[in-house]
Amino acid sequence: MLFIFILEIIGTIAFAVSGAITAIQKKMDMLGVCIMGIVTACGGGVFRDLLLGKVPPVLFTRPVYAATATVASIIAFIPAIRTSHFLQKHHFDRIVFLADALGLGIFTTVGVNAVQSAGYGENFFFSITLGVITGVGGGVLRDVLAGNRPYIFVKHIYACAALAGALVYYFAEPLLTVFPAMLAGSLVTVIIRILAAHYHWSLPKAK
Amino acid sequence: MLFIFILEIIGTIAFAVSGAITAIQKKMDMLGVCIMGIVTACGGGVFRDLLLGKVPPVLFTRPVYAATATVASIIAFIPAIRTSHFLQKHHFDRIVFLADALGLGIFTTVGVNAVQSAGYGENFFFSITLGVITGVGGGVLRDVLAGNRPYIFVKHIYACAALAGALVYYFAEPLLTVFPAMLAGSLVTVIIRILAAHYHWSLPKAK
Amino acid sequence: MLFIFILEIIGTIAFAVSGAITAIQKKMDMLGVCIMGIVTACGGGVFRDLLLGKVPPVLFTRPVYAATATVASIIAFIPAIRTSHFLQKHHFDRIVFLADALGLGIFTTVGVNAVQSAGYGENFFFSITLGVITGVGGGVLRDVLAGNRPYIFVKHIYACAALAGALVYYFAEPLLTVFPAMLAGSLVTVIIRILAAHYHWSLPKAK
Repeated sequence: MLFIFILEIIGTIAFAVSGAITAIQKKMDMLGVCIMGIVTACGGGVFRDLLLGKVPPVLFTRPVYAATATVASIIAFIPAIRTSHFLQKHHFDRIVFLADALGLGIFTTVGVNAVQSAGYGENFFFSITLGVITGVGGGVLRDVLAGNRPYIFVKHIYACAALAGALVYYFAEPLLTVFPAMLAGSLVTVIIRILAAHYHWSLPKAK
Repeated sequence: MLFIFILEIIGTIAFAVSGAITAIQKKMDMLGVCIMGIVTACGGGVFRDLLLGKVPPVLFTRPVYAATATVASIIAFIPAIRTSHFLQKHHFDRIVFLADALGLGIFTTVGVNAVQSAGYGENFFFSITLGVITGVGGGVLRDVLAGNRPYIFVKHIYACAALAGALVYYFAEPLLTVFPAMLAGSLVTVIIRILAAHYHWSLPKAK
Repeated sequence: MLFIFILEIIGTIAFAVSGAITAIQKKMDMLGVCIMGIVTACGGGVFRDLLLGKVPPVLFTRPVYAATATVASIIAFIPAIRTSHFLQKHHFDRIVFLADALGLGIFTTVGVNAVQSAGYGENFFFSITLGVITGVGGGVLRDVLAGNRPYIFVKHIYACAALAGALVYYFAEPLLTVFPAMLAGSLVTVIIRILAAHYHWSLPKAK
């Protein structure tokens, strides 16, 4: 459980940073930056808990996640005030990209794990889709609130990467136990995202 | 029950096609098209189940709806790759319009029926509003995610048509039994939508 | 309880007017105006009830709120048809601002109170955050549906004002009983909003 908690905190920080920097790019003020950080980091988990019937959602019963997201957002905000002449737009874009990939990988496997903990693990379809929803939910909220087209619809192989990570976790967990399976699933998602961006993989589009 | 299931599948296909074509018009890739198809077809039902306290929502316990939406989205995508020079923008617009009207009619009556099945049928206000929410929910999600102004706020007599269908179903069901009342309610919605679009009916606007 | 109900009705009217006028500014028709009024007035409460696990949400079991929002929206709509040459854009903006501030103050304290009534009052973090969500939720929905950047991210000290009101209510309620604490919390929110707008207070932004 401690290892899962550590992974969750890493995912929370990563998603909070991606939300905070998106907010900074949109010229939001300090509180807006924190709210966007919290919403991005915790939004997927609130969807997950509502769809599992777990109320109040963990966000509210264990404040550590929101507190972590707040601190991460503030830290992301501070250098933006002072040293923004060092950081160019493409640096921000790259940080958002990597933080988002890491959060996506971790929260997808956390989501599949939550379905199993709630006793629905034998429902393959529910496990995989709720994993993907947990992974992508925060980012979709971030993009809708910022007025951007959601990442999931424009970035290379975004939901695919979450889907692959969810499948890896689902099938690896009985063999490897929870924590190694989480690492494996998260890594697969992050690697697919990086490769897809680097080689400009994309799925077919209609003309 | 079989007849209701058939109507639900028809509504699922119709909404999935409307979501998929909206996604194609927005230049999304194949997976984005499928996700938009699923969200449009199943979004209203997830709202309905959350508001009724039915967790996990039917979307997750009976994968047939998501599977149907996926297949319908892929079929909508294929001709878009190959024959898009045959289909002009106004064809797409017309297909989205008709598919959306059909889905709206069916899901509105399905929503009212779900309130009754959950034992809240004597609550007239809940029955009608949840019917309308079930009918319009998927389309609102589709439009917000695609970055369009929601249909419900710009199209002629959109929520009105759903409201009329919900009322027809609510009052016809005790007289006609479920299935004929569903057909009647759905037809009323579709006919109002078609007439409103053809004759450019509209409600008063402020100047 | 009667006093709380009166406050809720005032908040409902205020938020409905802010939603209706936003819809009028976006050239929506009469039904769109009513829907925006209802969504703005009742959206925060639906979030609150879902997050508290209270289904069906109060919106559906006590139609008085939706009915009040509808009547307020229609009344806001009527002068817009007839006398729009008397009302300039900045009048509308000011009415939306004041109505929104009043709704924000009342619903924030109502939200904290709802957490206490549901038996989670000892959870400080949940009480405050759910209060803020109840207060800002309807306005966020209004802005996303209208295609505007949410108020909460652009207006001076918006979420801060809700946060202050929630804290005032939370700590004043044991000393003053429910109703005076609600008045105090709501007033603090409204005053902070007005002062912040008048003196152009703002939080630091990244450059």
